[in-house]
Amino acid sequence: MRCEIVAVGTELLLGQVVDTNSTHIGDELALAGIDCHFKTTVGDNHARIVSVLRIALDRSDAVLICGGLGPTSDDITREAIAEVMGVELRRDPAMVENIRKLFEARKREMAPSNARQADLPEGAAFIPQERGTAPGLICPMGEDKVMYAIPGVPLEMKEMLGRAVIPDLKRRSGTTAVILSRMLRTWGMAESTLGERVSARVEALQERSNPTIAFLASGVEGLMIRVTAKATTEDEATTMLDEEEAELRAILGDVIFGVDRESMERVVAGLLVDRGMTVGVAESLTGGLVAARLAETEGASKWFRGSVVAYDSKVKYDLLDVPEGPVVSAEAAEAMAWGACKALEADVGISVTGVAGPTTQDGQPVGTVFMAVALRGQVESEEAHFAGDRQHIRQFSTISLLDMLRKRLLADG
Amino acid sequence: MRCEIVAVGTELLLGQVVDTNSTHIGDELALAGIDCHFKTTVGDNHARIVSVLRIALDRSDAVLICGGLGPTSDDITREAIAEVMGVELRRDPAMVENIRKLFEARKREMAPSNARQADLPEGAAFIPQERGTAPGLICPMGEDKVMYAIPGVPLEMKEMLGRAVIPDLKRRSGTTAVILSRMLRTWGMAESTLGERVSARVEALQERSNPTIAFLASGVEGLMIRVTAKATTEDEATTMLDEEEAELRAILGDVIFGVDRESMERVVAGLLVDRGMTVGVAESLTGGLVAARLAETEGASKWFRGSVVAYDSKVKYDLLDVPEGPVVSAEAAEAMAWGACKALEADVGISVTGVAGPTTQDGQPVGTVFMAVALRGQVESEEAHFAGDRQHIRQFSTISLLDMLRKRLLADG
Repeated sequence: MRCEIVAVGTELLLGQVVDTNSTHIGDELALAGIDCHFKTTVGDNHARIVSVLRIALDRSDAVLICGGLGPTSDDITREAIAEVMGVELRRDPAMVENIRKLFEARKREMAPSNARQADLPEGAAFIPQERGTAPGLICPMGEDKVMYAIPGVPLEMKEMLGRAVIPDLKRRSGTTAVILSRMLRTWGMAESTLGERVSARVEALQERSNPTIAFLASGVEGLMIRVTAKATTEDEATTMLDEEEAELRAILGDVIFGVDRESMERVVAGLLVDRGMTVGVAESLTGGLVAARLAETEGASKWFRGSVVAYDSKVKYDLLDVPEGPVVSAEAAEAMAWGACKALEADVGISVTGVAGPTTQDGQPVGTVFMAVALRGQVESEEAHFAGDRQHIRQFSTISLLDMLRKRLLADG
Repeated sequence: MRCEIVAVGTELLLGQVVDTNSTHIGDELALAGIDCHFKTTVGDNHARIVSVLRIALDRSDAVLICGGLGPTSDDITREAIAEVMGVELRRDPAMVENIRKLFEARKREMAPSNARQADLPEGAAFIPQERGTAPGLICPMGEDKVMYAIPGVPLEMKEMLGRAVIPDLKRRSGTTAVILSRMLRTWGMAESTLGERVSARVEALQERSNPTIAFLASGVEGLMIRVTAKATTEDEATTMLDEEEAELRAILGDVIFGVDRESMERVVAGLLVDRGMTVGVAESLTGGLVAARLAETEGASKWFRGSVVAYDSKVKYDLLDVPEGPVVSAEAAEAMAWGACKALEADVGISVTGVAGPTTQDGQPVGTVFMAVALRGQVESEEAHFAGDRQHIRQFSTISLLDMLRKRLLADG
């Protein structure tokens, strides 16, 4: 069963609205085990909607049209569907009455234009509305194809999709398949290196094509490996994901820092809570980003003491006891980490100092960064070099320092 | 000139990623006066990408393909384009060398798979990469059509679109109309109030429909009023924008804090530089966000001393000399502002303390925030109440404090 999505609305093409509807629909189709190979966005233009629907019906079994069911003159999905079906639109008096009552229930009078929402292509059926005033449509095409039309208002769309469209699609497809996917989040390995390490695994899977592996770059949040499994039950799909995750962890080790929505700071938070430790930060070029990411986690007050953002060198000397001298160095980073422990009364002190640009500092080129973690009387530092603009360097420094802390905590047992 | 968008990536169909790239591209095309009638999303499948490109080329003059230029085996945009063009892919040795150097600059070794990014369809040209490792492609089709391929990584996509694709599209379209727009950024006024204040102006403009005014909510960055003017020369369009900006400033006053890409922190930076003053921050619930925003500005080292992120109350008492007691209060905020001046040796001290949630603190409900600015021996504080989740409250607190500093500096003359 292949179902494709057609999103209708000029505002979507003009970049005035982010199309989160299609994201939701794609997710729901995937979970229902229905393939979705194409999604098309088209403006409020009759000829163009008709052409898009014809292309979609030609290559898919079902077409899910979202938007263009409102009462105004630019809402023309109903007309376009009727033309594609080669039938007339007929106004349904019972539905007109239904819409009128919905307005009455909200103490408002129905505008004459709302009667258009009761127009039904011959041979089609309404999907009753439960949120807004627009009913949806189920429009069979020939023996075995179908078009659905649902409103573009997110709340109405979600409700109608879940209640009527997905169940109807599942019934038609006769599928009992469940598709689940899991994201393995990695940090610290280039996409190409990661790809090579995992390539044998990808090839092994390609033969049976289930589960599948895909790589997603998410910029400063690292690379994600998505594993997708198709099975007849949710338990079976979950077992497949567990097995594949274990395989990938065996290959990649602690390069995988989290799963699905587990951010780096949430992982670090979990490790600190497990160990009953608190953390304090001393940061320079990141200017507060390290602290801000840590503080984003709910319950941070249990383990996050605070940060000294020592942007000016003198603040480093005064508040963090950094020896006067160059502040872009391993020595300065180590002193800052100790300073954070002491000034903020924290069990673990982490620090980062470096050159975000635009100009060099202490003879170090832009992108040079020193990070340190102080813990149980021992301090370790690392040097890194990041490319990109100021913001990029600062964000990479931030997540790299958190990753360094994560590894140090893991090693601490 | 009609240009359509093809977004490549299975993750976009599966609903795992919201396609904000297409929104940005749609916006940029509209501003350049180039029609965009269709947008198609397709997965990482060779035959399907090829079919989508053929359909797109059939009905549009230009096709902008976003994504699928990475180094891994599921990045197949280059291969699909070559098939549509009916040509071979040739590896460009100079580009391989170029990519290798980009890796070297980051002290990393190029994986062999990255060489794929140097594959060029015969007859096409590279768009040099400035952010990531993937170059883009310009691929002429016959006499008068063209395909562009740009990376799906948002930073790389935006940069390449603005630098190379939009200018090339404008040149090809031979359009002489100049469309310019200007964003007036506001803070501190509800959308409905803003709409009412400006409504007479909007109506006056609707009669001649040039320039036009649109309101864009940008969440935590406030509301933006976009003025768009169409003219035959850039000077003429600029004059129209200047005139309209003056009208709106007369109505809205200092609610407008900046123009276009002038962020709140950049405006504050300008005011501090003008006055030759430095600033220090003491922050609690914002956890480093205030400092991070200030430090984002180039040249921040001239006027930004640093921040004490006093997440734990004891850090407030110890490092900022806040009197022991409730820390969510006007008194605490004022003491923190003074503490920032002193501990960080700054001319101006700004502070924020409050309850980000999920639970109440010091008997204050979630969303209660106190902010203070200390300057020339005088401290002023403000109480605010923000709705929303933890992150929302923290971000609103941050920009509100910066706005308070802005107004105080303006008043200081």
